[in-house]
Amino acid sequence: MEINSDHHWNFHGDEHLNKFSISVRGFLNLVSSHRNTDDPRPIIAFGRADPSAYPAFHTSPLFVESLVSAVQSFKFNSYPSTHGVLSARRALAEYYSNSLPYQLSPDEVFLTVGCTQAIEIVISVLARPNANILLPRPSYPHYQTRAVFGHLEVRNFDLLPDKGWEVDLEAVKALADSNTVAIVIINPNNPCGSVYTYQHLKEIAETARKLGIFVIADEVYAHMAFGHKPFVPMGVFGSIAPVLTLGSLSKKWSVPGWRLGWILVTDPNGILEKNGIIENIKNYLDITPDPPTCIQGAIPQILAKTSDEFVSGLLDLLRTNADILYEKINEIPCLTCPNKPEGSMLAMVKLNLEQLEGIKNEMDFCIKLMKEESVLILPGLAVGMKNWLRFSFGMERSSIEDGVARLKAFYKRHAKASNHIA
Amino acid sequence: MEINSDHHWNFHGDEHLNKFSISVRGFLNLVSSHRNTDDPRPIIAFGRADPSAYPAFHTSPLFVESLVSAVQSFKFNSYPSTHGVLSARRALAEYYSNSLPYQLSPDEVFLTVGCTQAIEIVISVLARPNANILLPRPSYPHYQTRAVFGHLEVRNFDLLPDKGWEVDLEAVKALADSNTVAIVIINPNNPCGSVYTYQHLKEIAETARKLGIFVIADEVYAHMAFGHKPFVPMGVFGSIAPVLTLGSLSKKWSVPGWRLGWILVTDPNGILEKNGIIENIKNYLDITPDPPTCIQGAIPQILAKTSDEFVSGLLDLLRTNADILYEKINEIPCLTCPNKPEGSMLAMVKLNLEQLEGIKNEMDFCIKLMKEESVLILPGLAVGMKNWLRFSFGMERSSIEDGVARLKAFYKRHAKASNHIA
Repeated sequence: MEINSDHHWNFHGDEHLNKFSISVRGFLNLVSSHRNTDDPRPIIAFGRADPSAYPAFHTSPLFVESLVSAVQSFKFNSYPSTHGVLSARRALAEYYSNSLPYQLSPDEVFLTVGCTQAIEIVISVLARPNANILLPRPSYPHYQTRAVFGHLEVRNFDLLPDKGWEVDLEAVKALADSNTVAIVIINPNNPCGSVYTYQHLKEIAETARKLGIFVIADEVYAHMAFGHKPFVPMGVFGSIAPVLTLGSLSKKWSVPGWRLGWILVTDPNGILEKNGIIENIKNYLDITPDPPTCIQGAIPQILAKTSDEFVSGLLDLLRTNADILYEKINEIPCLTCPNKPEGSMLAMVKLNLEQLEGIKNEMDFCIKLMKEESVLILPGLAVGMKNWLRFSFGMERSSIEDGVARLKAFYKRHAKASNHIA
Repeated sequence: MEINSDHHWNFHGDEHLNKFSISVRGFLNLVSSHRNTDDPRPIIAFGRADPSAYPAFHTSPLFVESLVSAVQSFKFNSYPSTHGVLSARRALAEYYSNSLPYQLSPDEVFLTVGCTQAIEIVISVLARPNANILLPRPSYPHYQTRAVFGHLEVRNFDLLPDKGWEVDLEAVKALADSNTVAIVIINPNNPCGSVYTYQHLKEIAETARKLGIFVIADEVYAHMAFGHKPFVPMGVFGSIAPVLTLGSLSKKWSVPGWRLGWILVTDPNGILEKNGIIENIKNYLDITPDPPTCIQGAIPQILAKTSDEFVSGLLDLLRTNADILYEKINEIPCLTCPNKPEGSMLAMVKLNLEQLEGIKNEMDFCIKLMKEESVLILPGLAVGMKNWLRFSFGMERSSIEDGVARLKAFYKRHAKASNHIA
């Protein structure tokens, strides 16, 4: 058979599909592609919320031992059961019940391949003709991406920088209608670094109840609050409106690469069960990949070995880093961080273009900054806020200082002639 | 706020979504729910293709050590890069290139969460209005499920029991039209246990070329051929028609719970790249969960430590089991296994209902068998063949003998009065 390259083939790529993939990774890869390989300095990666590779943020050897022991047991090499290894679901139910006014059962815990898959699952089961979902702006982009992919209509409400990035509840009420099924709340917040008060979360739950919708509470940064406000789980208000709580080992245990997440049904009145949402989740779980059995099997030991000291060590590092970033960033005239971060490891920073010469927008800023200074920042467009920037401060203190110094140098070169650096 | 249970909620389950979830797991859970808990005997699970828990089928301690060493290195705790850890992709490219007439590059390897996710990815990127895909009947049901979920039209061609479960190529030609984009070929075959010859695979590739479609080659059972026919990778014919090869650690390395799979671009003329399919795959990978970094990181060591002895040990066990199952099953008048399995760990068995009294169909057979004998078999409906049964022989020899004895007892109780057992 002759092999001619002009043979007719039926299949071809789908441009539409490529548009779905708005992802942090996609944006970071795009910006990183402008790296000047002649620059001998390492990249300062403010764009990545993954400190796990820095020695100060290494996970505990106790957690590593837990996984090693699960692997060496030869007990966790087979396919897992659909909804996760029972001992793992039981351990997570107990662990989370400590922060809730009611007891979770193992049947209210579903294990997922990181929080990424948890988001995919909750968004996908809601996708149907005419339904819509309320997403914060700014947000973690995976919600939007999966909603667009599943043809679920997205309506965005603002988080208010002047109110410590609280939810604009009036906007939420104005956006919702009888086809609105759920609202997404991220606390501690990605990308703003804010932590919501008990009172604000209660108002969100009450608003959801009035609107007849449930709450998807993204708590991938659960307990990672290092300011004055304590972390309050949204599930505390599960009796006001049903809540699905999403979490993972990634941040608090500093092992994002282990890709182990969960969905908790924090709905003590069983409304999600009655309304068929839980059955949809179970059915969706039957047709999606599972997290590895051995990592599931390690969870009981990992949770048993999670000490307050380990977590407070992480929080101390993040608090110091947040202080430094907040102070230093606000010394640069083209950048404004309106609120000092109190949680997660992220901050939103406003780019003041009028202070700069020849920078068109925040994407242009990020690309030129990468080219000239090998500093990687996530453009705000990725999280829904044009001409803002998302910074992570999950890194060594020295890297933050180095990165901010490079930002200052960049500003000096690009400042409008009439400006002076502080 | 008063908590009344008759509050109006907007959200409700989607019955349509539940219909998508045709899965092996779903069928097995349904049949298993009829287990008589008073029966002290263990379940004989012919339904599950997962021998990894049986001591004889345990994975090699060398593979376990490889994973342990990756975990203990603290090098693989961070998020993986989108398309997989480079050293893992390089090792797999080299490993597979040994069986191909051309060299794979690491960029032609994508890592996935088991073969389950590999199937999801290749099916999802093909889904678009009016497109259709050719699937074998019987088949592994995940192809059908993901196609229905993604609104990709499915057209089924038969595998022919009278021709050793070869593809009915005339049917393939009759089914295809200008909207057909790909054909799925599973070799060694799930669920039939057949192994395709070089000649048959070449004819499939030539047919695909004529039709202008590409081949999705499911080789999750690659090299697991224990009869007279050697395993030939479909990628060998990649220059006739483009091939995407799917695989995983699950079967050959006996660690299905590690959930590590891959997609290989076995397309030496780069037609899938030119036609935009590879870009679609990369974009889809950006929005789906990754396999854990530590398991990716273990791959170079695992492949380096994969000895012929380990694989031939597995094949010896499977060959013996296939012989026993084939012989014993055909002694039971209500069951016929038309072809002795030569690969994978599965066999299709015809249920002869006319030999039985009061059994309506194969689902009824499976449920009553579970109730009375605690034997779990996958109903053929799950794999697209009504009144057939899918048997796995990936288990201890003694379990197969015990299971077949229970099947005989079941037959005796339910045989038509005019019959006699052989």
